[in-house]
Amino acid sequence: MTAAYDALIAHTRQTTALEQAAGLLAWDQETMMPDAGLAQRGEQAAALQLAIHDRATDPRIGDWLAACDGADLPPMALRNVALIRRGFDRATRVPADLQAAIARAASHGHGVWIAARAAKRFADFAPTLDTMLALKREEAACMADPGQRPYDALLEAFEPGLTSAALKPLFESLAGPLSALVQAIAERPAPPPLSGRFPADAQRRLVADVAAALGYRLDAGRIDIAVHPFCSGQGSDVRITTRIDETTPLDCLYSVIHEVGHAIYEQNMPDVTLLEPAGRYASMGLHESQSRLYENQIGRSRAFAGWLYPRLQAAFGALPVDGPEALYAALNRVEPGFIRTEADEVQYNLHILLRWELEERMIDGSLPAADVEEAWNARFAALFGRAVPDAAMGALQDTHWSQGLFGYFPTYTLGNVYAAELFAALERAIPDAADLIAAGDFAPLRTWLTTHVHARANSRPAQQIVADAIGYAPSAAPLIAYLQAKFSGLYALA
Amino acid sequence: MTAAYDALIAHTRQTTALEQAAGLLAWDQETMMPDAGLAQRGEQAAALQLAIHDRATDPRIGDWLAACDGADLPPMALRNVALIRRGFDRATRVPADLQAAIARAASHGHGVWIAARAAKRFADFAPTLDTMLALKREEAACMADPGQRPYDALLEAFEPGLTSAALKPLFESLAGPLSALVQAIAERPAPPPLSGRFPADAQRRLVADVAAALGYRLDAGRIDIAVHPFCSGQGSDVRITTRIDETTPLDCLYSVIHEVGHAIYEQNMPDVTLLEPAGRYASMGLHESQSRLYENQIGRSRAFAGWLYPRLQAAFGALPVDGPEALYAALNRVEPGFIRTEADEVQYNLHILLRWELEERMIDGSLPAADVEEAWNARFAALFGRAVPDAAMGALQDTHWSQGLFGYFPTYTLGNVYAAELFAALERAIPDAADLIAAGDFAPLRTWLTTHVHARANSRPAQQIVADAIGYAPSAAPLIAYLQAKFSGLYALA
Repeated sequence: MTAAYDALIAHTRQTTALEQAAGLLAWDQETMMPDAGLAQRGEQAAALQLAIHDRATDPRIGDWLAACDGADLPPMALRNVALIRRGFDRATRVPADLQAAIARAASHGHGVWIAARAAKRFADFAPTLDTMLALKREEAACMADPGQRPYDALLEAFEPGLTSAALKPLFESLAGPLSALVQAIAERPAPPPLSGRFPADAQRRLVADVAAALGYRLDAGRIDIAVHPFCSGQGSDVRITTRIDETTPLDCLYSVIHEVGHAIYEQNMPDVTLLEPAGRYASMGLHESQSRLYENQIGRSRAFAGWLYPRLQAAFGALPVDGPEALYAALNRVEPGFIRTEADEVQYNLHILLRWELEERMIDGSLPAADVEEAWNARFAALFGRAVPDAAMGALQDTHWSQGLFGYFPTYTLGNVYAAELFAALERAIPDAADLIAAGDFAPLRTWLTTHVHARANSRPAQQIVADAIGYAPSAAPLIAYLQAKFSGLYALA
Repeated sequence: MTAAYDALIAHTRQTTALEQAAGLLAWDQETMMPDAGLAQRGEQAAALQLAIHDRATDPRIGDWLAACDGADLPPMALRNVALIRRGFDRATRVPADLQAAIARAASHGHGVWIAARAAKRFADFAPTLDTMLALKREEAACMADPGQRPYDALLEAFEPGLTSAALKPLFESLAGPLSALVQAIAERPAPPPLSGRFPADAQRRLVADVAAALGYRLDAGRIDIAVHPFCSGQGSDVRITTRIDETTPLDCLYSVIHEVGHAIYEQNMPDVTLLEPAGRYASMGLHESQSRLYENQIGRSRAFAGWLYPRLQAAFGALPVDGPEALYAALNRVEPGFIRTEADEVQYNLHILLRWELEERMIDGSLPAADVEEAWNARFAALFGRAVPDAAMGALQDTHWSQGLFGYFPTYTLGNVYAAELFAALERAIPDAADLIAAGDFAPLRTWLTTHVHARANSRPAQQIVADAIGYAPSAAPLIAYLQAKFSGLYALA
């Protein structure tokens, strides 16, 4: 039985190493690759994906798993067996031609979506979305366990163990308080923004210093410029990207702080099990919780504004905001926008709620693509209190659906919920957390997160890791309390 | 039959795409990877090599090849079939455990060689070299066709179709004239070198401009800094590296010009067949001919010195050499050295001759590792007219043998021979080549090389490509004539 497990895990480790190689190709494409190299890179990435897929569906995995049945293995090995079995079952349940059809539809859909968004015409995208929905429903039906809802089968790819039934009360508890908060803030004057002229070189130096101060290991990572900020890699080679807007330092800085949260999670998992399923990240939601906690609970706190202010002065000279308190307000400006990726902490989860409601109905068949734009606009007006001006600002703004990503959006809000819960627990464990942040002593916070989250990797489901860390079952209550307290103060609400 | 060919070529194209991915991992390791990432990269590269090896020895290749036997296919397809058959035969003739043993010995041998070189003790390396020689002899015996000499079986990995019997008259014709030239130059005063202070930023701008002027497409490539200069990639993504020494601009500049020669070859093969064996480079020797032609026949010519001189002035201000003619002399300084990688055009091929003589005897068993240092020193004294001071300057200077690379060295000299022949043919076709170089109009030269070399890719053996380009059978005569004429002038020899 041990021989079967050894063969299984050696095979899996090699597959993971190939996935890391594929990750490097993707990083290079966004940061280093010369423009002309795109078509060739496509062939390289496709060849690598095929090699990975062949390994992931190798029939010997079934034999090894069968031989491991009932084996007397240590807990991490049993967890590996369970995760590999789950992945193998789900991968082999979907016929290869359906997988290929989805890949083709995603590639085609992405192009159609770009054109439709440029034209601001949802109708141009709707037929393509319907095709994708039919394929994804078929895929969900293949992957689902007996009795599992199709949407939950898709959700599992990103957040194992999560169900839409569990999401429903979470989103319902968020909807009322956040919608009320947004509409109350809208009646208040917005604080001055941090705008002016901020040279690119000075921004690059500043964000490298901030990233290092937060605990990002630059000897095991690097920061580059890309169109979209992202984090790539595992363990001893975790790279982040950012972008630079010379009219404000905040886009670059808070992209870096967000990605640093992801990177610190990846850099602090146990080295020896990095290539094993139980040694990787536990879920997309838990990953996002780490980026959000650094970006918001730490990075947009009053204490952090106090630490950051003199560093901004040193980097850029005189600032357009007068003192740390004004910086704190500028870091937390709430503006009436329409775009999820530009949304502040208060509005962000309402964006996700809206998408989750719509995509769940799209997958269960009760919302055809032709009706999505109208449903979007109606729900947006109810939640945000204003009308969507056009489809590019509304139902066409995100790429996810065009590429078949259904069940991904909820992990963003789950990340915010986990972040609020984990930070509340961290503050109970480290009562002087705000003083440490104000002093730039971030190590004790990172250590607490490593102990309770990073080092646990995927040893158990994400929900369990959070529950173990906070000492009770997760809920949205800490997030709501955090946002209400913070923004009531900032905007002088009753 | 066409179906079998289609399956064969689709399989091969995917394998080549994986090899390109492996090439990117290697490039990244030398240029971008954070230091801590080395161990992980080792696992990624090993997993990719295993996947490539599995594909390259897939038994279905044998079936497809059998089905292609006698098929009515176009010439490029027949060439592909022949090359794939040759590669498959050679790969499958070597048992997997022998391949693994060689890989382990290479990894181990590299470490032993580094330590022995640092200690300047060849005896520390000799037992490791003997182990490697035994393995390589076994490998050669497996790969060899009936009647093929073991050394020729190794040579074929780098220069298909070349035999030691063909190399013998080539090296014999070079030995006398070059040895005489070296010893005559040694009695003459050396011209002043180009040394001083040359800021790194100015060097980087200069070499990018020179690379672009020579015809290197920067939209399909990039120039980075690495410990050793190299060229990586194919087609629309061909990257080069260089290094910077602020006491002279020539190391950086001539590394770039050399790598640009490699890169221009790769950038100008036909796009559609890049992933097929007949669409790749024809041999290591032909590859090296392109780098040498740009570096020496073009880059170290009087005409190029005239073009370069004002550019060096613009980049660095006043120069320590007075005028283009003094620059031309500085570019062609011959100094009594011991290290191959630092050797000038005249001495370089004597270094290779020495290595070829020794490694051929090592493989045929007549020169045991314990006797290599003595043989090296004796031959060096005869060829160069001076004594080797220690093993680090002698038999321990190159990494090749420690890693099992036997049969590689001759391709360097073959590159020089081909370069001289091709440039002589180019000058016959373009009589005003020197005027074009002086004017910085390099495009007609590049076009001639693309027509006669680059675009022919691996459509026929390298020797045939050169013979077709020059109109007669290759020999060392043009190289000898070129070196004698150039250096007799430079050093005022009789």
